Amino acid sequence: MHSVHFTAETSANGVLERDFTVGEVTGVLWSPESGADRAPLVLMGHGGGQDKRAPGMAGRARLFVTTCGFNVAAIDAPGHGGRPRTPTDEREIAALRQAMAAGEPVGPIITRYNADLAERAVPEWRATLDALQELPEIGADGPVGYFGVNMACAIGVPLTAAEPRIAAAVLGVFWSESLIEAARQITVPVEFTMQWDDEHVPRESGLALFDAFASKEKTLHANTGKHMELPRFEADSAARFFTRHLGRTVTSST
Amino acid sequence: MHSVHFTAETSANGVLERDFTVGEVTGVLWSPESGADRAPLVLMGHGGGQDKRAPGMAGRARLFVTTCGFNVAAIDAPGHGGRPRTPTDEREIAALRQAMAAGEPVGPIITRYNADLAERAVPEWRATLDALQELPEIGADGPVGYFGVNMACAIGVPLTAAEPRIAAAVLGVFWSESLIEAARQITVPVEFTMQWDDEHVPRESGLALFDAFASKEKTLHANTGKHMELPRFEADSAARFFTRHLGRTVTSST
Repeated sequence: MHSVHFTAETSANGVLERDFTVGEVTGVLWSPESGADRAPLVLMGHGGGQDKRAPGMAGRARLFVTTCGFNVAAIDAPGHGGRPRTPTDEREIAALRQAMAAGEPVGPIITRYNADLAERAVPEWRATLDALQELPEIGADGPVGYFGVNMACAIGVPLTAAEPRIAAAVLGVFWSESLIEAARQITVPVEFTMQWDDEHVPRESGLALFDAFASKEKTLHANTGKHMELPRFEADSAARFFTRHLGRTVTSST
Repeated sequence: MHSVHFTAETSANGVLERDFTVGEVTGVLWSPESGADRAPLVLMGHGGGQDKRAPGMAGRARLFVTTCGFNVAAIDAPGHGGRPRTPTDEREIAALRQAMAAGEPVGPIITRYNADLAERAVPEWRATLDALQELPEIGADGPVGYFGVNMACAIGVPLTAAEPRIAAAVLGVFWSESLIEAARQITVPVEFTMQWDDEHVPRESGLALFDAFASKEKTLHANTGKHMELPRFEADSAARFFTRHLGRTVTSST
């Protein structure tokens, strides 16, 4: 198995930010600057066409570190963030651009492409988690959460279904069709977001995915707004959801 | 118009609790013990068969006072909390008990009865608000919110539609049928809760009521659980919702 190799390190406003690789996978780990104690770990996926350090990702990571005291790890999905693209990546990205330019529905292409990405990404996430749990500030026994909407939901649903170390997940803003079987295998607490005026994902499809989770505790957060307009306060809500389920008390409210 | 008459006063853990009357209406006002400053006011309705001081009410009121610095006012609905019952109250309560004993659907009786209660309760709430705004710690210009689920949603929807002083509302766990026209007149931010496994309110009815609000900002929180199992963390969420919209910064997180 691969270990974590740190390749760069910066620190600001109480947050230590370290680039790392695990084999071919490129990632970033945000941690409390002060922390020698073990802390829960949140795995955070990025949206389609973005990468591990997109502004929304870094902002959420800093929020989780400073308000919850968590470690947060993001990795670049296959074909994203400078990672090499396969012929499938090239073909599907071209199909997606063509559909968008023609004003045609993108759902069938995105669900098909993201299912392919998830098959590659799930083993990468599991190997990354193996490696991260060797770090003393994370450890093999600590609680683990997953945060991912849009493409990171398409990866996160099969990941959470397959990976027993994930104890709680924030997911959402994706079609049900390709994910419903995996969702039915998930029993950990889920906070699921959808956009009530989503121009891509039909309302019924989002509701069906929420309904599919077998979790005893699950919460749907549906907000007004389009596909990419998830309100910022949902990040605060996710922080509180993870605090409830990963077991670390909020220590400050910067 | 009637003024607020305080009839009893206690104080504990930073919260001043005062019983009051406004004309025939009996209520309770929870306020920050320390506070001479003006603070936002949250009006809080109780569920059917309960009263202004039910355990859930008092707990939420203390949360809003201690974490948000708000004033919180609850009043007994007509026919509740020792207030006199009309022949309609007696007839509808008997019909409800009969339906419950027979295992028949309670929805038609509750929606009809609560619509009648709302017609009486809305003017009482407005007169109470007039009187409360004469108090120096509340004032005529301060922001006002409304919190009410179950029967207090049946009262709160027409109240929020009619009362321009209400700037934000938490509502939910009620049928859409009797409320949809009033909901369409509401444009202030709404946080709407529903129970995903509600044995009384059909899922489609709850979703239709959420959909009906004309608010530019509205959020649906759907949780697993039955009609009376609204999770406690929704009170925390309501506190943050009111803090966002009524404009007072969270000062402590007791």
